[in-house]
Amino acid sequence: MQKTRWKAGNMIYPLPAVMVSCGNETETNIVTVAWTGTICTNPPMTYISLRPSRYSYDLIKASGYFAINLTTESLVRETDFCGVKSGRDVDKFKEMHLTCIRDEETHCPMIEESPVSIVCETVEIKELGSHHMFIANVKAVYVDESYMDEKGKFHLNETGLIAYSHGSYLSIGEELGTFGYSISKKKKPCITKSKKDKVEQEASTMKKGAEKSTSCHNKKVSSNKREKNQQIPRNSATHKSNKKTSKKRNKNKKHNKKTPQ
Amino acid sequence: MQKTRWKAGNMIYPLPAVMVSCGNETETNIVTVAWTGTICTNPPMTYISLRPSRYSYDLIKASGYFAINLTTESLVRETDFCGVKSGRDVDKFKEMHLTCIRDEETHCPMIEESPVSIVCETVEIKELGSHHMFIANVKAVYVDESYMDEKGKFHLNETGLIAYSHGSYLSIGEELGTFGYSISKKKKPCITKSKKDKVEQEASTMKKGAEKSTSCHNKKVSSNKREKNQQIPRNSATHKSNKKTSKKRNKNKKHNKKTPQ
Ligand SMILES: Cc1cc2nc3c(=O)[nH]c(=O)nc-3n(C[C@H](O)[C@H](O)[C@H](O)COP(=O)(O)O)c2cc1C
Ligand SMILES: Cc1cc2nc3c(=O)[nH]c(=O)nc-3n(C[C@H](O)[C@H](O)[C@H](O)COP(=O)(O)O)c2cc1C
Repeated sequence: MQKTRWKAGNMIYPLPAVMVSCGNETETNIVTVAWTGTICTNPPMTYISLRPSRYSYDLIKASGYFAINLTTESLVRETDFCGVKSGRDVDKFKEMHLTCIRDEETHCPMIEESPVSIVCETVEIKELGSHHMFIANVKAVYVDESYMDEKGKFHLNETGLIAYSHGSYLSIGEELGTFGYSISKKKKPCITKSKKDKVEQEASTMKKGAEKSTSCHNKKVSSNKREKNQQIPRNSATHKSNKKTSKKRNKNKKHNKKTPQ
Repeated sequence: MQKTRWKAGNMIYPLPAVMVSCGNETETNIVTVAWTGTICTNPPMTYISLRPSRYSYDLIKASGYFAINLTTESLVRETDFCGVKSGRDVDKFKEMHLTCIRDEETHCPMIEESPVSIVCETVEIKELGSHHMFIANVKAVYVDESYMDEKGKFHLNETGLIAYSHGSYLSIGEELGTFGYSISKKKKPCITKSKKDKVEQEASTMKKGAEKSTSCHNKKVSSNKREKNQQIPRNSATHKSNKKTSKKRNKNKKHNKKTPQ
């Protein structure tokens, strides 16, 4: 392989393209952000990097709160729109028919139609250059109950998450393996319950995946997903397109995470 | 949609699962990292968050350098292995038959088989909690020339990138749209050259996508990719599986990015 050396640039992909909701008691806004991620497992901490010119910048700086709303195939257009239009000129919630709900504690605006909304409180703003980094503590995570199974396990990868990579919004394809599969005896994209225990303690950071994968299930996630999306046409009035209506799920308030990452 | 409030946790997905290479003149190591991302466009800055218990932690702290190597469908097993085995016990380059190349300036170890290697220099270590965040400047980006076209444009989304989400390694599926498509007149996942100019100046952060999309090409990326991967079986001796051999590409040393994000 021949490799060309370029000058410095931003090439870490694929990334999430999240819709960040923000505002105060009277005003709300949404801004699309790809410069985001997890920076600490315990305490759970995240960041978003914003140009100071964004309308959202001042809103978030003033309130101290923002919510990271994950985006899905049925929210691609909304994701893009909130990333090219400014809250200075347009009410993005209204224009995109998105529903603003509020965190019960912080009153931070969230997007109901997103399967996961992560409420964050800024602890530091680092002025790095073109972008300022909002370092934040996670205060709460809201998840769409219809993706929780009987045991209270949340099936994030069935929500139809999208990725952003090098200018494109991309669907998520098939599962190629789960955490730890490479050292399972079978050398297959599958980790068994007995194998899990052998995964060394120090490597347990990302064990959530292993916990949820007690049997081989190298299924085609994407096709299932698309089928579902086709079955439930997007209703611009109610926006329940991510909702699974087929199964009644338990309301289990516990976080189904055994090993914090 | 009924949403359940959980306590704080880490739920931002999908993420890249990068192989971070590090070391000094005599020793090299690889550690898989999902807590990574871009934190600033200009200057280009990134981060990785590591538990201090990782063997890589001290190596990176000592040298000040690390390289973020993007991972692909043909590197899934390697990605997982480097995330469950420690450099304390095993030489991961050797075990995984990966080739260590060095940045010409910093001598930082990189993985040749990765289509993109991003050389980073730590500027600050933030001790957040379970994880310490290495804030870094990008020093150089190495890209596999075989994904560059005649005009020197790099086709990252043809390399077969993978995402990591909630414990699973996932392939990237089809393209759902490109940056700015939602405000194109046709309301289709396509942005035309004339539309591009109308994308408001402030929204130009992520314009790289738009720049590269001057015609409708809502093609199925994933199937192309899988075809390619099937045509070129992984050769464990040479590991050229990501390499496109069909086309001769130009060696254009310029970064084909017109609008910094
Ligand atoms: C996919 C995508 C990702 C984006 N990521 C960021 C980002 O990380 N930081 C940022 O400042 N702007 C980002 N933008 C641009 C803003 O979302 C855009 O400028 C938006 O119109 C700002 O809205 P506001 O003025 O209402 O805050 C992104 C846009 C898109 C489409
Ligand atoms: C998909 C995946 C993502 C991971 N992300 C991180 C991370 O962000 N930070 C971290 O400290 N460890 C992470 N790990 C765990 C380390 O890669 C793992 O503990 C590794 O064995 C450490 O290697 P070392 O001791 O040679 O440094 C991850 C593992 C996997 C499989």
